[in-house]
Amino acid sequence: MIQKCSAVIIGVGPEQGLGATLASYFAAKGLHVYIAGRSEDKLQRVAEKISRKGGSATSVIADATVEHEVAYLFNIVQQDGFCLDIAAYNVDINIPSPLLEMDAESFTSIWQQNCLGAFFFGKEAVKAMKEKQKGTLFFTGATASLRAKPPFTAFSVAKAGLRALAQGMAREFSPQGIHVVHTIIDGVIDGERAKNQFPDYVQAKGKDGLLQLDAIAETYWAIHKQHPSAWTHELDLRPFKEPF
Amino acid sequence: MIQKCSAVIIGVGPEQGLGATLASYFAAKGLHVYIAGRSEDKLQRVAEKISRKGGSATSVIADATVEHEVAYLFNIVQQDGFCLDIAAYNVDINIPSPLLEMDAESFTSIWQQNCLGAFFFGKEAVKAMKEKQKGTLFFTGATASLRAKPPFTAFSVAKAGLRALAQGMAREFSPQGIHVVHTIIDGVIDGERAKNQFPDYVQAKGKDGLLQLDAIAETYWAIHKQHPSAWTHELDLRPFKEPF
Amino acid sequence: MIQKCSAVIIGVGPEQGLGATLASYFAAKGLHVYIAGRSEDKLQRVAEKISRKGGSATSVIADATVEHEVAYLFNIVQQDGFCLDIAAYNVDINIPSPLLEMDAESFTSIWQQNCLGAFFFGKEAVKAMKEKQKGTLFFTGATASLRAKPPFTAFSVAKAGLRALAQGMAREFSPQGIHVVHTIIDGVIDGERAKNQFPDYVQAKGKDGLLQLDAIAETYWAIHKQHPSAWTHELDLRPFKEPF
Amino acid sequence: MIQKCSAVIIGVGPEQGLGATLASYFAAKGLHVYIAGRSEDKLQRVAEKISRKGGSATSVIADATVEHEVAYLFNIVQQDGFCLDIAAYNVDINIPSPLLEMDAESFTSIWQQNCLGAFFFGKEAVKAMKEKQKGTLFFTGATASLRAKPPFTAFSVAKAGLRALAQGMAREFSPQGIHVVHTIIDGVIDGERAKNQFPDYVQAKGKDGLLQLDAIAETYWAIHKQHPSAWTHELDLRPFKEPF
Repeated sequence: MIQKCSAVIIGVGPEQGLGATLASYFAAKGLHVYIAGRSEDKLQRVAEKISRKGGSATSVIADATVEHEVAYLFNIVQQDGFCLDIAAYNVDINIPSPLLEMDAESFTSIWQQNCLGAFFFGKEAVKAMKEKQKGTLFFTGATASLRAKPPFTAFSVAKAGLRALAQGMAREFSPQGIHVVHTIIDGVIDGERAKNQFPDYVQAKGKDGLLQLDAIAETYWAIHKQHPSAWTHELDLRPFKEPF
Repeated sequence: MIQKCSAVIIGVGPEQGLGATLASYFAAKGLHVYIAGRSEDKLQRVAEKISRKGGSATSVIADATVEHEVAYLFNIVQQDGFCLDIAAYNVDINIPSPLLEMDAESFTSIWQQNCLGAFFFGKEAVKAMKEKQKGTLFFTGATASLRAKPPFTAFSVAKAGLRALAQGMAREFSPQGIHVVHTIIDGVIDGERAKNQFPDYVQAKGKDGLLQLDAIAETYWAIHKQHPSAWTHELDLRPFKEPF
Repeated sequence: MIQKCSAVIIGVGPEQGLGATLASYFAAKGLHVYIAGRSEDKLQRVAEKISRKGGSATSVIADATVEHEVAYLFNIVQQDGFCLDIAAYNVDINIPSPLLEMDAESFTSIWQQNCLGAFFFGKEAVKAMKEKQKGTLFFTGATASLRAKPPFTAFSVAKAGLRALAQGMAREFSPQGIHVVHTIIDGVIDGERAKNQFPDYVQAKGKDGLLQLDAIAETYWAIHKQHPSAWTHELDLRPFKEPF
Repeated sequence: MIQKCSAVIIGVGPEQGLGATLASYFAAKGLHVYIAGRSEDKLQRVAEKISRKGGSATSVIADATVEHEVAYLFNIVQQDGFCLDIAAYNVDINIPSPLLEMDAESFTSIWQQNCLGAFFFGKEAVKAMKEKQKGTLFFTGATASLRAKPPFTAFSVAKAGLRALAQGMAREFSPQGIHVVHTIIDGVIDGERAKNQFPDYVQAKGKDGLLQLDAIAETYWAIHKQHPSAWTHELDLRPFKEPF
């Protein structure tokens, strides 16, 4: 009998979001999925949708920036006894601002959410995967991971830090069989957040100018399925029409 | 009726090489493959192997650095009437040398083979794909694409040039529906070439320390199958044990 | 009468350290220097040395990670009435550790010292320089700013963040006449810290393998003196014998 | 008695150009300068100007892409008996074009002039500097060295190659005392070429938006004067108003 395996995704919010889509996609591939986030309502809706489609999901309320909540999440995974195939850190908070108007609290919070939480999550994931020397750990980056542009400087500080974390972890844990991946989402995702936050921009881009959620999930899956002799650590993802 | 499509791979040499493996892999996926290279014998063996496995292949003797031979190759594709799904530039020539001992001829030849030929090939591929606004164009890079280290400086000049070519072409032709991909093969491929050129190194690395040919081909295929809303332009591929 | 100008350096520790050397160098060029750090003793010694050589210095006890202490430092500058020519952020804390053994406190503290403090310092410096649209703002980076390697992953997270901060600030404030510079110190500085922390390594490198303090200061000065039509934002500094 | 030293600059064209300015600047610092280029008239005018200002110059007609002409240039240097302090490769040819309209000849010529010539020049410079283990070798790069954008793809192929050449040479020859520098000129130089080729653009940028020739030369000089314990290999230069 093959043991059922699982995936943990943190940063799961709206149904039309990357976290929820990754969870649904992995569930459709036969993994039990742990979905974590701060909003019980949203997690509930995502979990129900996964169930309706025949998948299985456990929702866990957890704030990625609170270490013991992240530990608690991985405790649940361990207690259930599923092996852990995938862990995806998908928290992504951006607060655009002229630098002089940004306060210490926002600057720190952006870093905590995009980067410190990834450190907590990454450590727990490695601990969970280490024994079997197997598993894929995803960190979702952005254009800002490579280039700092106002008014996104604080976001870029956090995302450049996240990229360094992913790179350092890949160098440390790949030889132990853990596949550490950093994706650079270069463009706007066709999801709820963008539609709410900047509807005109989304409208202007048009369907061809936005990253489709399922398309991203497909690539995450393909990278997860790579043979260890040819692992990808970093790749960009962008709409074909996106200037870069 | 769905029209049969095709793939063109240039830089096809030994059976246990990346060019031949990509060709076999694409043929197994149902594409007719055009395999091009300078050695009739080698092409013949690769074509026969593909046929034995139920695929279909046309071999074309062509030197990537001779413009009209590259044009001739794409003429054949066009005359056959298959649509063109994939074009892969896989020529990769490295001549290590202290810089002061490298002569103009070698320096130029390394560039012509790794980069000028890619320019010829890329142009023809785009012309062939342009009308249907569809197709994937692969350029195979190396560690040296990103970092120049002696005694590989000349190789790095060529590969950094190739990377720039791929990047410029992606910016120019992605919006027209052509997916331009640059892969960074960071490590030694478990193929005939490495075994002949540095057998001790291959031995020392061990099976886990080398890139497996099929594993690379799988990722090329996955990237080719990406939805245009989330295309990858650049990704690295390395054995999990490879320090980087 | 030409108004006397000043430089502010934070992260001033031992006499044989980069902060102290930059301060002495700028003082020798005729600037009044504000030297800030956490150790009153050390600041005292540096200030006395500067005075003995005919320069003028004010020492200010300040922790770069405490926002109001940084603000207090710049308040003093403003009250004195000297114009501000240079502000240099020179705090640099590294705690090597396997990632699984690093705790939240250390990870956060490394970031606060290398990066959050730079945000506080950078904002205050810009506010002080903005009116005259003139001044140079230095951020001191390291090899780790570009590459994350264990056991320095946490340091690299912080330094990559610092680099993004510098880059974003350059894009935001250069057009307003403020020269934002990020230096990449690639190697070990021939100062007190290295001699105390890893004496064997320093010994092995030999004189030629270490960055000389005055040599670094000279380049900082040359970059400060650049004409605004040809400003350098980023440059590396490494001993000629250092492999990279 | 201190032996008079010299500088060799290739790619010297109009008086209001970077090659000529570097030559004048180095001559004013007391070096005998060898100025090389393809136009006898232009070299003549530059040499005369240097003489009028009290400097000494030798003009040598040489095409950087012709190996024996580059060798001839360095032969002259050697025969004169001046030591060689600086060698600057300043050839910079850009032919913008949509990729499909660029022919093999242009693509190759752009590479030969920006990159192959640099290989010839770099080798000869190293040979001339090797014995004394002293000297600075400059390669002038551009924005395109780092990013390939249409219609400058071919230029970027050449400049990315030049950058790799410079990096590989730095790694190979720095430990032997030769300072190899790659500058990234990010913007338009306020010289004759830009005024002739795109006068409207120059006009629109305004004085503040262009790199001043003397400002560039000053930084080259400062980098040349760096102590070997803190050498810069790469730095960018851009007008303070230039977006990047």
